[in-house]
Formats: sequence, C-alpha cells, structure tokens
Amino acid sequence: MELQMFAPILGAVGFVIAIVMYNLVKAQPVGDEKMKDISEQIHAGAMAFLGREYRVLAIFIVLVFFLIAIGMSFETAFAFLGGAICSMTCGFIGMKAATRANVRTAEAARQSGQAKALEVSFNGGAVMGLAVASLGLVGVGVAYIFFGGDPETSKYINGFAMGASSIALFARVGGGIYTKAADVGADLVGKVEAGIPEDDPRNPGVIADNVGDCVGDTAGMGADIFESYVGSIIATIAIAAAAGPELLAKLGSGTDIQSNAMLLPLALAIVGLLFSFVGIGSMKVLKGLDPAKALHYTTFVAAGGFLVAAFFVIQTLGINTGVFWAILAGTLAGIAIGQVTEYYTAHSPVARIAEASKTGPATNIIHGLAVGLESTALPILIICVGIFVANYCAGLYGIGIAAVGMLATVGVTMTVDAYGPIADNAGGISEMAGLGPDVRKITDGLDAIGNTTAAIGKGFAIGSAALTALALFSAYATTVKLEVINLINPMVVIGLLIGGALPFFIGALTMTSVGRAAGKMVDEIRRQFREIPGLLEGKPGVKPEPEKCVDISARAALREMVLPGMVAVIAPVLIGFVLGKEAIGGMLAGATLAGVLLALMMSNGGGAWDNAKKYIESGQLDGEKKGGDAHAAAVIGDTVGDPFKDTSGPAMNILIKLMSVVSLVIAPLLV
Amino acid sequence: MELQMFAPILGAVGFVIAIVMYNLVKAQPVGDEKMKDISEQIHAGAMAFLGREYRVLAIFIVLVFFLIAIGMSFETAFAFLGGAICSMTCGFIGMKAATRANVRTAEAARQSGQAKALEVSFNGGAVMGLAVASLGLVGVGVAYIFFGGDPETSKYINGFAMGASSIALFARVGGGIYTKAADVGADLVGKVEAGIPEDDPRNPGVIADNVGDCVGDTAGMGADIFESYVGSIIATIAIAAAAGPELLAKLGSGTDIQSNAMLLPLALAIVGLLFSFVGIGSMKVLKGLDPAKALHYTTFVAAGGFLVAAFFVIQTLGINTGVFWAILAGTLAGIAIGQVTEYYTAHSPVARIAEASKTGPATNIIHGLAVGLESTALPILIICVGIFVANYCAGLYGIGIAAVGMLATVGVTMTVDAYGPIADNAGGISEMAGLGPDVRKITDGLDAIGNTTAAIGKGFAIGSAALTALALFSAYATTVKLEVINLINPMVVIGLLIGGALPFFIGALTMTSVGRAAGKMVDEIRRQFREIPGLLEGKPGVKPEPEKCVDISARAALREMVLPGMVAVIAPVLIGFVLGKEAIGGMLAGATLAGVLLALMMSNGGGAWDNAKKYIESGQLDGEKKGGDAHAAAVIGDTVGDPFKDTSGPAMNILIKLMSVVSLVIAPLLV
Repeated sequence: MELQMFAPILGAVGFVIAIVMYNLVKAQPVGDEKMKDISEQIHAGAMAFLGREYRVLAIFIVLVFFLIAIGMSFETAFAFLGGAICSMTCGFIGMKAATRANVRTAEAARQSGQAKALEVSFNGGAVMGLAVASLGLVGVGVAYIFFGGDPETSKYINGFAMGASSIALFARVGGGIYTKAADVGADLVGKVEAGIPEDDPRNPGVIADNVGDCVGDTAGMGADIFESYVGSIIATIAIAAAAGPELLAKLGSGTDIQSNAMLLPLALAIVGLLFSFVGIGSMKVLKGLDPAKALHYTTFVAAGGFLVAAFFVIQTLGINTGVFWAILAGTLAGIAIGQVTEYYTAHSPVARIAEASKTGPATNIIHGLAVGLESTALPILIICVGIFVANYCAGLYGIGIAAVGMLATVGVTMTVDAYGPIADNAGGISEMAGLGPDVRKITDGLDAIGNTTAAIGKGFAIGSAALTALALFSAYATTVKLEVINLINPMVVIGLLIGGALPFFIGALTMTSVGRAAGKMVDEIRRQFREIPGLLEGKPGVKPEPEKCVDISARAALREMVLPGMVAVIAPVLIGFVLGKEAIGGMLAGATLAGVLLALMMSNGGGAWDNAKKYIESGQLDGEKKGGDAHAAAVIGDTVGDPFKDTSGPAMNILIKLMSVVSLVIAPLLV
Repeated sequence: MELQMFAPILGAVGFVIAIVMYNLVKAQPVGDEKMKDISEQIHAGAMAFLGREYRVLAIFIVLVFFLIAIGMSFETAFAFLGGAICSMTCGFIGMKAATRANVRTAEAARQSGQAKALEVSFNGGAVMGLAVASLGLVGVGVAYIFFGGDPETSKYINGFAMGASSIALFARVGGGIYTKAADVGADLVGKVEAGIPEDDPRNPGVIADNVGDCVGDTAGMGADIFESYVGSIIATIAIAAAAGPELLAKLGSGTDIQSNAMLLPLALAIVGLLFSFVGIGSMKVLKGLDPAKALHYTTFVAAGGFLVAAFFVIQTLGINTGVFWAILAGTLAGIAIGQVTEYYTAHSPVARIAEASKTGPATNIIHGLAVGLESTALPILIICVGIFVANYCAGLYGIGIAAVGMLATVGVTMTVDAYGPIADNAGGISEMAGLGPDVRKITDGLDAIGNTTAAIGKGFAIGSAALTALALFSAYATTVKLEVINLINPMVVIGLLIGGALPFFIGALTMTSVGRAAGKMVDEIRRQFREIPGLLEGKPGVKPEPEKCVDISARAALREMVLPGMVAVIAPVLIGFVLGKEAIGGMLAGATLAGVLLALMMSNGGGAWDNAKKYIESGQLDGEKKGGDAHAAAVIGDTVGDPFKDTSGPAMNILIKLMSVVSLVIAPLLV
C-alpha cells in the first residue's frame, strides 16, 4: 500500500477517537438542575448561532463553487467544497464538545477536585484537537490520492485550502464580533455601571458572553488552525510540484525526488497525528501534576516524538537531512514566539502598564499601545531567523516544510488551545450556579492557565500563519512561473501598498463592528435592568432575558462578517486581473507584512492590558486594589484590548492566508 | 549664466526676504509688561532647548562626518555637514520668528483686530517658510554647481540630503517628546485633576506646553518639510544621473536630455520659490477676507502659477510633456490627501467618536483606533494612483519629479503650517496675560483654522514623504545598479519584515518616552500645587516654577531622541553589509509601507480624537457638554491621541526618508 493511503485511514481513525472522546466527556456527570439549565442555554445559544452562521456560509459556498467551476475547473470546485465542509464539521464537533465539557468540568471540580476537572476539560479540548488534525488529514489525503503526485493535476488540491480558508475568515470574524460584543457590553453595564461581579446570573449578557467564548475561542480558533495546517501542507506540495531542477537538487538526488518531496508534508502530518495521540493519551498519566506543567508536557511529548520520527521519515524517503533542519527551525521558531508572547503578556511589560494606570486611563492606553507596538520586534526577528535557516537548508521548500513541522502536532496543540475556553466557561457556570468558593478556586486556577496557553497559542497561530502565508506566496510564484517579483516595478509597489492597507482596513471594520454591537448590547442590558422589576436587586424568581442579548450578538456577527470576508476574497482577483500577476505578488507581501505586524501588536497588546488588570486585582501594584482608580483605568484598557486580541488581531492571521490561497487558486488563469 | 547659478542666487534673495520679514514682525508692538514677560519665558525656554539639542547633535554630526569621510569620501562628508547646518539654521530662524510673532499676534488682536492678527502670525510663519525654501535651494544649488551635471560626481550631493534627514529625525522626535510630555502632563493635572482651564497661569506646566508648541510644531515640522524638499530634488537628480537609455528615451530625445533631466528638479524649485514669493505677498491683499479662505488662496495662487510656469520650463528644456503630467499628478495627489485628512479629522468620523464617548472612554478609544485604521485606505489609494500616473508618463523619474512638484511651492505651504503654532501660542499668551474674551475669541478663531491647516499639512507631509521615500528607493536601486529587487528571494523577504518592524519599534519607543516623561511632569506639577502655598488658590503674587517643568521636558526629549535616531541610521548600514544590497531594497519597501500606514493611522486618529473633544465642547453632541461624562471620555481619547499625532506619527515620515537616504549614501560601497 502506498504511503498516501495511510493519510485518510489514519485520519479516519483519529476521527473515530474524537467521537469516542466526545462520548466519554458526555458520560461524565452533569451536576444539578441549575447547572444543567445554564449549560443548556449556552449549548443552545452556541449551536443556534452556528446554525445561522452556516446557513449564511452555505450561500457563499454555493456561489463560489459555481464561480470556481466556471472560471477554473470542477475538480478545484469540489476540492473547495471539501475544504469548506471539513472546516465546518470541525467547528460543529468542537463546539458541541466544548458546550458539553464546560458544565461537566465544573461538576468534576465540585465532586472530585482539580485533577478530574483538568482531565474533563482537556478531553473536551481533545475532541476539537483531534477533529482538526484528523479531518485535515482525511481531506488533504483524499485530495492527494485523486490529484497528487502529478504536478499537472496537483493544483486542484489548492481548492481544498481555499475552502478551509474562506470558512475560517468568516468564523473568526463572526465569532470574534459575537464574543466581544457580548463581553464588552456585559462588562460595561454589569461590572462598571452596576458594580456586580463578572458572570453574575442577574446580568442578561452573561449567557451571551459564555456562548461567545465557545463561538470565538473554540470554533474561531479551530477554523484558524485547521486552515494553517491544511494550508501549509498544500503549499508545500505545490512548491514541490512546481520545483525546478535547482531546487530539487537541494532536496535530494534520487529519480523520484520530486514525488517524494510532494509526499513528505503528508507523511509528516501522518506522523504528527500519531504522536498527537501519544501526547493526548499522556494526560491520563500527567493529570496529577501541576496543571500548567501537565499541559506543557503533553505538547513536549508529542513534539519530541514527532521530531525524532520526522528525521527517520526523511531518511527513508531519500530526502536530504537539510530538510530536517528546516523542520527543526520551524518548530523552534514556533516555541520561541510563544515564549516572547508569554513575556509580553505576563511579565515586566504588564507591570509597566499597571504602573501607568496610576496616572489614569490615558497613560494606561498609551503604555498598552506602546507595549503592543514593541512586541512585534522579537517575533519578526525570530520569523526572519526561521526563514533564513529554512531557506539555507532547503530553499523555498524549506519555508513550507518548516510551517508543516510547526503544525504537524496540531492535534495536541489545538487540544490545549481548546481547553482554555472550556475552563473559562466552567468558571462562569460555577459562578452562575453558585457552586461556592472552593469550586470557583479550582476553575479559576484552570482558567488562569488557559489564559497563558491562549496567549502562547495566539503567538503560535501568528507564527504559523506567517510561515504558511510565505509558503503559499512561494507556491503562488512558482505556480504562475514568476522567477521575479520586482520591487522596482511600480506595479509591484502599488500592489504592496494596497496589500498593506487591507489589514488596516479590515482591522477598522472589525473594531467598528465590535464597538457598534457592544453599544447595542449596552442599551439592551440597561433596558432590562431598568424595565424588569427586581432584577438588579436579585429578587428570587426574577430572571433576565438572555436570549435577547444572544440575538443581538448573533445578528451583529452575521451582518458584519460579510464585508471583511468578501474583501479578502475579491481583492486578489481584482488586483490580479487589473494590475497583473506580478502586482499580486506585491500585494501578498504587503498584506503579509502589515497583517503579521498588526496581529502581533493587537494580540500582545490586548493580552497585556488584560493581565495588567488582573495584576492590579491580585494586589501586586502597591497601594492599589480592585475598585480603586488605577483598577478602573486598567478595566478601560482591558476593554479596549478585548476586540484587539479576540476580534481584529486573529482576523489578520486568516486574512493573509486567505488572500494567499485565493491567489494560488487563480494562479493558473494568470500564467 | 547657466540656469543652476540662479538657484543659490535666488535662494540668497529668499533668505534676505526672510530676514527682512523677521525684522518686520519684530517691529510690531509687543504689548504690556505681563505679555512681554510671558513671551520672554517662552522665547527663552525654546531657544535654551534648541541650544541644548544642537549641542547634542553637534557630537552626532562630527562623528558621522568622520565616518563618512573615512568610509565614503570627503565630498560626501562636506555635503552632509552642509545639509545638517542648513536644516539647523532653518530651525533656529523659524523658532526665533515664531517666539517673537506669538505675543505680537496677541497684541495685534487686541489693538487692531483679526486682519492684523492674521497678518502678523502669517508673516511670522513666512519667515520659516522662506527659510526652508531658500536655504534648501542654496544648499542643493551649491552642491549641484560643485558636483552636479556629471553622473560620476553627483552622488556626493546625496550627503546633503542625509545631513538634512538626520537633523530632521532628531528634531522631530526630540521636539515631539518635549511638546507632548508638557501637554499631556499639564492637561492631566491642570484640566483633569485641578479643574482649571487650559493655559491657566497658575499651572506650572503651561510655559513648557507653549514652548513645546514652538519646539515640536515649528522646528520639528520645518525640519521634516526641509528634508522632503531637499530629498525629493536630490533623489530625482540621482535617478536622472543613473538613468539608462530606456528611461531617457521616455523623457525626451535631445542629446543633452540627461543633463537637462538632472537640471529640471532644480529649475522647478527655482520657479516654485518665485511663486512662493507671490503667494506670500498676496496675503497683503487677502488679509481682509475670512482667514481660512485667505490662507487657502495664498497656496492656490502659488501652486497655480507654479504649474503654468513648470509647463513652459519643461518645454524650454526639451523634455517631454509626460513629465508635466507626472508633476500635475503629484500636486493633485497632495491636495487630495489633504482633503481626506480633513474629512477624517473634521467630519462624520469625528461625530462617530464623539457619539461613542457617551458609553465611556473604552468605546471612545475603540472607535478612535478604528477611525485611524480606516483612514489609511484612501490616502494609500491616492498615492497608488499618483505612482501609476507618474510612472506611466515618465517612468521612475516621474515618481521623483511628482514629489518635487508637490514640494516646489514649499515656501508658502510651510508658511501656512508655521502660522498654526503661532496662533496657538498667541491664544495661550492672551489667556495667561488676561487679555479678555474679545481678544481670546480672535486668537481662538485663528487657532481653530490652524488646527485644520495642521491636519492638512500633516496629510501633505505624509504624502510627500511617501513619494520622496519611493523616489529615494528608486534612486538607491539605480545607483547600486540593481535591475531587480526580487520578493521571491528570501533575503528580500527578511529585509521586508525587518524594515516593516522598525516603524512599529520606533513608534513604541517614542510612545513610551512620552508616557514616561508625562508621568514625571505630572509628579512635578502635583508637587508644586502641593508645596507652593496659595498657588492653586491663585493668591496674588504667588508664582509657579515653570522652569522646572521646562527642564523635565527638555531632559526627557534629549535623552529619548538618541535611540530612535541611531536605529534609523544604523539599520540600513547593518542590513546592507550583513544581508546584501538586495535585502536593503526589501527593508526600505517594508519600512516605507509600515511607516506610511502608521503615520496615517496615528496622525488622523489623533486629529479625530482631538476634534471629537472639541465637538462635544462646542455643544454639538446632544445632551452633552463640557465637564460631563462624555466630555471626560473624549478628553482621555484626546490625551491618547496627543503622542499619536504629534510625536510617533510624524516621526514615521522622517524615519522612512532617513533610512532611504542613508541607503542611497552608502550605495556606492554596495555596488
């Protein structure tokens, strides 16, 4: 049996394991009636939003399907459909698991303590992690079996990446607007105006806020990582398919070096999934440890095993060891960017922002923006070192395979990412259901670790997006047979400038959307507090109307996600047909540069603001405490940071990948 | 007599006119003792700062002079020295004029009314405008007479642009930190904490704030525009000097087409200065009109006359009419960007931010950031259209000459720019000296127009900086004989990424500097209010100690300007010698892209925040007024916008030009 046949088979196995884990999670005790009721509301809200979102996306998918079928080929159109469906399935399963695991984590914390709660939330995350990795492998594997190996037909596979990318942008932008409209609105009225705690059941926006955590952080992040995973594999296949003799000579000397180079990304994904199983399974043993350590170790186990195995796979395929060094460079770069992210969102920059809060919100914001701007420098240098090493060892192919290396163990990294919002939700449920301070302490502890893993995960997502975008860029250039994209050519400069302006424009659209939707949410929550007698006083039996808030978030998200999504899809097509194929190259370079910079600035700045607030709350700023002036200033900073880190920033990752992949798909028309 | 001889002669004439105008301004009545005393304090503070700044710069200049003399050539080193000295002289004269004109404007408003006050402040600005235009022309003219005409030696002229650029960056960054540390600090304690009006004489930070207006807006802006003016002329000469037969064929067919193409930028500068005289002189007639119209008309008179004359100059030199269209494109692009800037800082976006202030500072900041991000799109498109037309009509030479066209009437545009801070200062003096509401109304009116002209001027500065940077970039590429700067080459991508990160990094440094210095200023003003008995209560005879605040600003500015300046000078050299000449090309493209985007976002966002606050103060937001919650939120937004629009944003313009010009100067070493 040929190696590529293992991809769908192992993928199918992974998917079965995901389903088994879902049922394992569901079999856990769900707690008392009140908990069940709250979790049902969150579950229903999340699934209802997903349903509405998917109905909107269905129109888009059908439309683009026919456009591709007419303009390009039916093969590409079907691959597009496959990518879209796989991505949506991941989102659906991951969301179902997250909204089942949240309440069961809270119950596990109450009944059995921290270790069990960690296990339940981790397993809930693993459903998403495994779904992403296995469906990615099934999809790319099947596409490869049909179209791969032959450089002529392998271009059809690009459609799969485009399907995944389009869904990702809509999911990220829609989910990001949903979650932050709810979060900002609920906080502004609840915490700031009414002075009631976060997640207080009297606040009508709390259910929407918790739904938002699932919609934004789980489904959005899943679609983002799914896209990077699939995109990096496909870009590397495309680079290998279009490789000239010079590049091939760098990779190895056998006669079948080109087909082996095309096979390698798939082989690495297979090995990566195997070691993701090992990493996820290791939690059974590790759960008794300190939770932060346990989570780190699961990823180390998987990454370490993967690297060793990758070395042997490369030897077996007769590929030069230089390719292994490129993979190692990619993996190390991913880890290093995560470390920098952690520094900027947890160490002295956070203390600096907290200190600046003493002189009020203005200086808090000035310092937070400065931290965000500053935090771009080191990750960019790390990416540059990664590119340098990867290119030195294996040419353009090295850049693609480095991204694959970074993402191969996505099964476990995505698990850790998806664990965060589950723990966050568990905290919300235990607060709303009044489970008491002991339970809350466990869930808060798990949630705090989730914030750190989320920050690291975001750094990782940006790093992998940058490498994937560059790989797609290289794949585009080789596919349209451009040996030169010349910056001295004014058309390329125009492309560069327009490409650079797009992330700023999308950033503006998404920030405005959140601001506007949050304003509506504020009005609605104020109205309920005013018009429902006894609600704010907490009279027994008086309940808010959370479904109205859920509806506001959902409507805003669905309406406002359309424009940014369309811009990202249409821009490359327009530039390509008006200014030519070289100008697209400039556009992609400009968009990648500006997108990565904004993503880093927004994610890190937002994370630092969030933690500066927590820093003051925990009493680390001398003389200041929760409720004081410095804290009030920090809450304002945190609120500004919310759409930065959870809406606009993450949208950048996908924007640059989607534009690259659309260019790659239309490349055959531009040759 | 050859045409180029006219440059230094006409320049010298312009300089003499500037001196005459300075004496005209100085001959105006200065007002009573109190006014004289206040203006002396501002004058002394400004000149003292300039003296200290120039002493720091002298060390830098001597150091770089020897480095260039050893590494490159004595000719380049002397040109560098000349550029630095000319720029510093402009700053010195402009500042002297501004600090003399401010009090005389206030007195003119008191004695004779609006028309006279407009004339005095305009004439004060004209000293700076004429100094910039005439010294630029003298300097470039002399350098051209020595080294021009011959493509071999003309490279020495680049040193002049580098001298001007280095001084500009230090002046802009230093001045920007000075003025915003004082402004933010004085506002936070005076307006927000103590609740006393702006420019209240009890506030110890007010003198520093008024000194800052001169230091930042006059000297900083002057150095910035001087650099663009000189840089665009020199870049165009360099492009012509290195032009191949293909480009030359686009420009004309005569045998002396290359030397005529090298001469044209100088010829245009000569014609531009002549029509600047006309424009400035026309104020004598126009001063009775509405001041906003009068200011606009002076620039229209100059620009219109210049365009007509430019058409004939081009015909006379036997150059194709295509070059004229490129100039027209540059001029129109400059005007269009100014219009967009005005839209974003005066129309519906401002109302949007004001509206968002109703739900607090967080939504004010979110919407302000969104406006800043959004405002990048249209100017970038305008620049792209400008590049497209200029390149279509006259190749790379067209891009350079378009920038020259935009800047040729700098004598009058700079006059209008420099008028703003004088009117601002006049308002401050009339408040401090208690000249009463009638006078204050006149100065406030002139100040408000100054805010609009400043916004347009900033847009113009960014547009011209972008074109100048692109022209310098083209000049670099032709000088190092690169026909290709290939974006597929990973070294170029690395250069692009590093170049893009630099503006973010410099932005972080300058924002942090302002934040830190403002913090110190807050502490000092709080201390004086606390420790000087009777100060806050306004007891007669009790005076603050403004010199301590002046010292804090000055120290911070001088200390914090060094690092950003060094980074900008060293980065191209480092990248060039480590990664090669093609990587520099990538770096310049990345820095220009990110720099222009950040400059637009920061300037427009900051301006919009400022005017949203004024919008509420003027009662245009229904139900809200000065001192209310929405106004408080808007004041916070304005404070965040201060370093955006007056420190970090303007620093970007110069950063991208300086990096380009340093690359151009070291280009001969990289061939």
